[in-house]
This record gives sequence, C-alpha cells and structure tokens, in this order.
Amino acid sequence: MASKTLFLLPGDGIGPEAMAEVKKLIAAMNEKLGSGFVTDEGLVGGCAYDAHGVAISDADMEKAMAADAVLFGAVGGPKWDPVPYEVRPEAGLLRLRKDLELFANLRPAICYPALAASSSLKQEVVEGLDILIVRELTGGVYFGEPKQIIDLGNGQKRGIDTQVYDTFEIERISGVAFELARTRKNHVTSMEKRNVMKSGVLWNEVVTATHKAKYSDVKLGHMLADAGGMQLVRWPKQFDVIVTDNLFGDMLSDVAAMLTGSLGMLPSASLGAPDAKTGKRKALYEPVHGSAPDIAGKGIANPIAMIASFAMCLRYSFGMVKEADGLEAAIAAVLDDGLRTRDIASAGTKEVGTAEMGDAIIARF
Amino acid sequence: MASKTLFLLPGDGIGPEAMAEVKKLIAAMNEKLGSGFVTDEGLVGGCAYDAHGVAISDADMEKAMAADAVLFGAVGGPKWDPVPYEVRPEAGLLRLRKDLELFANLRPAICYPALAASSSLKQEVVEGLDILIVRELTGGVYFGEPKQIIDLGNGQKRGIDTQVYDTFEIERISGVAFELARTRKNHVTSMEKRNVMKSGVLWNEVVTATHKAKYSDVKLGHMLADAGGMQLVRWPKQFDVIVTDNLFGDMLSDVAAMLTGSLGMLPSASLGAPDAKTGKRKALYEPVHGSAPDIAGKGIANPIAMIASFAMCLRYSFGMVKEADGLEAAIAAVLDDGLRTRDIASAGTKEVGTAEMGDAIIARF
Ligand SMILES: CC(C)[C@H](C(=O)O)[C@@H](O)C(=O)O
Ligand SMILES: CC(C)[C@H](C(=O)O)[C@@H](O)C(=O)O
Repeated sequence: MASKTLFLLPGDGIGPEAMAEVKKLIAAMNEKLGSGFVTDEGLVGGCAYDAHGVAISDADMEKAMAADAVLFGAVGGPKWDPVPYEVRPEAGLLRLRKDLELFANLRPAICYPALAASSSLKQEVVEGLDILIVRELTGGVYFGEPKQIIDLGNGQKRGIDTQVYDTFEIERISGVAFELARTRKNHVTSMEKRNVMKSGVLWNEVVTATHKAKYSDVKLGHMLADAGGMQLVRWPKQFDVIVTDNLFGDMLSDVAAMLTGSLGMLPSASLGAPDAKTGKRKALYEPVHGSAPDIAGKGIANPIAMIASFAMCLRYSFGMVKEADGLEAAIAAVLDDGLRTRDIASAGTKEVGTAEMGDAIIARF
Repeated sequence: MASKTLFLLPGDGIGPEAMAEVKKLIAAMNEKLGSGFVTDEGLVGGCAYDAHGVAISDADMEKAMAADAVLFGAVGGPKWDPVPYEVRPEAGLLRLRKDLELFANLRPAICYPALAASSSLKQEVVEGLDILIVRELTGGVYFGEPKQIIDLGNGQKRGIDTQVYDTFEIERISGVAFELARTRKNHVTSMEKRNVMKSGVLWNEVVTATHKAKYSDVKLGHMLADAGGMQLVRWPKQFDVIVTDNLFGDMLSDVAAMLTGSLGMLPSASLGAPDAKTGKRKALYEPVHGSAPDIAGKGIANPIAMIASFAMCLRYSFGMVKEADGLEAAIAAVLDDGLRTRDIASAGTKEVGTAEMGDAIIARF
C-alpha cells in the first residue's frame, strides 16, 4: 500500500478546534474503511512562536517536507501583534509555501445551495456559483527582494517591496489553470494590471503564449485585475477558472469567497510540481478563513472549511476521488438537513457547535 | 473675481460624449449664473497618441498645470492595445497624476436611493451606503523603480515592479483622510497588507502615529486589505472613510463602486497639496468608469459620473458649495423622476440617451 502520511498543523485560534473534527474523521476512515492514514502533528504560527520563538521550527519543517500532505488550520491573533516581523505567525505559513514550492493555490468559490440566501448578494447572482481561482503562491510581491524598511534619517523611513515574476513561473501556473479548466467549463480568465505593471505585461504575454502553444482548445480571456474585482461582484457566474498572481489572488479570492455566503466553508489546496519520477506533488490544504480569535475556544467555529480541505486532500494527494465526492456530499447533506454553525445560522435551521457539526458529517459520510 | 480656468480632457471612448454634457452645463452656468468659467480643451490617451504619438503632449501638460482644475473623461480602447507601453493611453493619465502631484484620490461610493434595487447586492446591504475611499495616487507600485522587463536569455524574461512608500507620503494621505472624516462620521479605516509587505508595516506605523499626534478625536481602525475587500462585500456600511495605497485603492474602490449599483454615476477627485501662499490645490476630476469603447459614439452613455465629477470640482476647487449641492440634488431629482440611461434602466423607468439625461439635469439645476 502506498504511504499516506499526513502532517497536521492546527495553528492558532479556531485552527485546533476545526482540526479536531478532521482528526475524528481520519480515525473513522482508518477504522471503518481501512484507509491507512498515518498522522503526525506540529506547531505553526503564534503557538510555535510561544514554544520555540519562531513561526515554525526546522524540525516541523522537515516533517512537512517529508509528509505526503500537510493539513493546515489557521495562524495569528492579537496576542502576537507585537512580535517581530520575521517571526510573526504568518511567517510560518509563508515559509511552508515557499520551501515546499507550493506554487499553485486552488481556491474554489462555490455557493452551497442551502446557503445561497445567506450571501450579501442577491440569490440569483450567486446561486449555483462555482468558480475556481488559481493563485500563484510562491512569487510576486510576497517574496521579491528587496523587501525592507530603510531609515532615511530626518524622521523619514522608506518601505520597499518588490514584485517579480519570471517567465517559467507564469508558464507553470497558467498550465495548471488550463489543465483544470479542461475538467470544468473549459474557460480561463487571466487577471493582471498590464496597464500599470511591467510584471502584468509579462504575465499577459506568457499566459497568451502558453495558451497558443499548448491549450488553444481552452477559451481564454484577459481582464484587468480591478475590472475583475468589479465583475466578480457584478456577475460572478461569467467566470469558470481565474488565474492570477499572488497578491491579486489574495484579494480576489477573498472577495470571491465572501460572495458565496459560505466563507466558513471554503477550502483551498496549495500544490507543488509533480515529482519527475513518482508524479507525486507536495501539497498543503487549508481553509480560506483565518484564525478568528474572537470565537476561538468556544466550540462554535465552523469546521466545514477544514473538512472540505481534507476532501481536497483526498482528491489531489491520494486520488481518492470516491471518498472525496462522498465527503463533499456528506457536507451538503448535513446542510440540507438544516444543521448550521452560528456563522451560517438562519431562521428555521438548527444551530450546532463545532463537534456536533463534525459528528453529523462523519455520520452522513 | 478669482480666476476659474478649466482644462477639459475628454479623452477616448465615451469620454467626449460625457464631457459634452458638462460643457453644456458650464455654458448654462456662465450664462444664467454668471459663473465666469473659462475653458480650454486638449487631447489625452489614444486620441493624443493618434495626433502626436504620445499619450499627452507637453503643450497640453502645460495647460493642465496652469489651469485651476482639470476635467478628465476616460482613456483607452482596443484600437490602442498594440501601442508601445510608454505611450499607451493610460500613460497620459498617470503623467497627469504624477506631474500635477495629485496624491489624494477621493472616491465616494454612494448608493443613490433610486438605484439601490439595481445593485447585485441585497437592497438592505447597500441602501443608504455612503463610503469615501481615499486612495494614495502618486506613489506605490504605480511609480516605483525599478519597473522593467529584463531578458534573462534562454527564453526567460523577468518582470519587475517596485512598491515604495516614504513616511511623508503616508502622513499626508492619512491627514487628508482624517480631515475628511471629521466632516463625515469621524471614522477612518486604514487598509494594507502589513503581514506580508514591509511597505504595509510602515503604512500602519505612520497612520497610527499621525492619528496619535494630530487626529486622536477621529476613530481609527486597521484592516488587512484582503479582509477589507471581504468586509466591503459582506457589510459595507461598517465603513465611513477608507484610506489605502495606490494599488489596493485601485482594487478596493472598484469593488466599492460596483456594490452601489451606480458605477456609471460615480465621480472622483484627485487633489494636490494646498499651495503654501494661495491655499489653492491642483486638481483633476474624473468619472470612476472607463472609456467603454463598446458603447462609444452611440449617444447612450451615462453622463452622470462626469457631471457628478464636475460637482466635486465646484466643491473642492472653487468652494461653490451651494452650486455643488444643487447639482447633486438635480442628479438625484432626475433619477427620482424615473429617467435612466441604458446601463441603469429597469422596469417602470424611462430610458433616455446621454444628451437627454444631461439636458434633464441642467433643467432641474
Ligand atoms: C495569512 C496571510 C499571509 C495569507 C496571505 O496573504 O496569503 C492569507 O491572507 C491567505 O490568503 O492565505
Ligand atoms: C486607467 C488606470 C491606469 C487607472 C488606475 O489603475 O489607476 C484606473 O483603473 C483608475 O482606477 O483610475
């Protein structure tokens, strides 16, 4: 049997509560289906800082590198606002992304039918929405150098960040987007600011060339990123797959997530390149939502995004398509049953806590 | 009588049609109210490129520098997609902003009551919405150097843009935001990505210090820009004034504009620093919408954003508060009368063309 090692990094805030439900799920799968998952657990973010003075220890990084997949909860909280920039909670996540070379961040924005009414957008605008945002995750302004604050004297400082993209980075992320589009509605929209940014000019050029060379069967459109944000709000169903850079992807995927009314339910996958020999890709799965320190520890957090992230893990890291489909169906079924955590509760539904929600999904699986 | 010189730059696409309505309005004000406006007109964008091979000529730049205010229509269109980056239509607008030192871009996102139903958001989410986005306009990744594409050989290129902010730039834009908040609901939200960008760390630090030193009577909040985008979609009425950098401001103001269902109606003002002697600020006023080449020349474009931009001009450049209020009231009245251009038409309203809409507003003024 192929190895199935999972490295769990629950992190801070509601991360551990959400992860607890996935642990129950893994135990149930091992016991009832003989899935054979082997898990280990580490620290990331504020809790890692508290324990080791860094946002992730080298030992845990090694475990993450060695695992078949990493499950990540959430990091950060006001407690760690004062810690130095280099060891702030987010640095742990950024190091994982960079060192594991997880350049492809897949963020589906789907609107669960049971929740269409809870969006701030009109029901007809979001009902049936199913977009996939493919965000470049290891380049751009997140990692470009120089990145520094210089003291100019005279009370003046200068903050500098650098946006950098090379041809190969744009080629490989657009390849991922085109491949995925073929399994969906076969339509990719690329977003950048070529009217202002040179990296945007190159982005546009390379996406266009990649399309022409290898994916001309896929429909390709280009949109300026600001217009793209507008169009997401105006009529999101015009999109199928959106491919964009690290920073625009951060902004646009958050807007897209909020459209669905299902923020607490949206998963993401961050993937590396397939290994030349084994075809295996390094991978990290995490909810789109953050650590929500305000509700942490109360047992009311929505575990669905974390569970749905595990469903993506089954699909992309282990090829367990049947199980992934089953788990996603179980989530939909529980929502159809009317169970809701507080963040998505509405009149006529039954409010449940984190553990109850997790149990209900496992029971329906 | 103080001088009242206006330099008109209608630009491309629907720019000239929209500007034509403002010209009628200016003529009417001169004739009936003796307002004494003196106008001159130039070329910017694609039409300037066609005439002079640049996106704005030095002669027109000189006129813009000398005028009391610039009224700007819109630039760009597919015709000019192939022109070199340095002389693309947008370069004219960017040169105006930079050379006139128009660092403060004010973008109100208001929801006209008559249009609340036409937003893609639920009526209760946007009804009565009145946000002001204060966007830094002469710094950041728009103008930072290096900004280039390097040929690395081997078929690889590298696209580079640089995000740069100095203390004084953040100080002066946050000053504008705090001052404006005092005339509104006294609440500023600053947005950046300090968890990823050093310029964001500096931004946060300087806004906080400026607040403490001079504006501690104003309520100040901080939000990460991605979370800010989410919150704009979730519950925009939580905001009063939002202050943010050039690129985030570009994205966030477009999202905010689309929320209102009134994109074709939203104006903006770009202001410089008050002159040390005269107190006068250089200023440019432009609609938030673009050149809409698909509907250009058909006489169906919505002139309201351009007219509302002129209302901002009356208010900010000439202190003509009564006239500005009157013009804004005339716009609202015409909408209440049920007149609509095609972009905002709905059942039970009367569809009119660009000129009819302009005439109706002038008649109501
Ligand atoms: C936590 C933060 C560093 C991160 C990012 O900016 O990428 C988050 O917003 C995300 O989108 O995953
Ligand atoms: C036309 C373009 C250069 C401009 C910008 O990016 O600033 C526009 O999108 C805007 O927001 O005024």
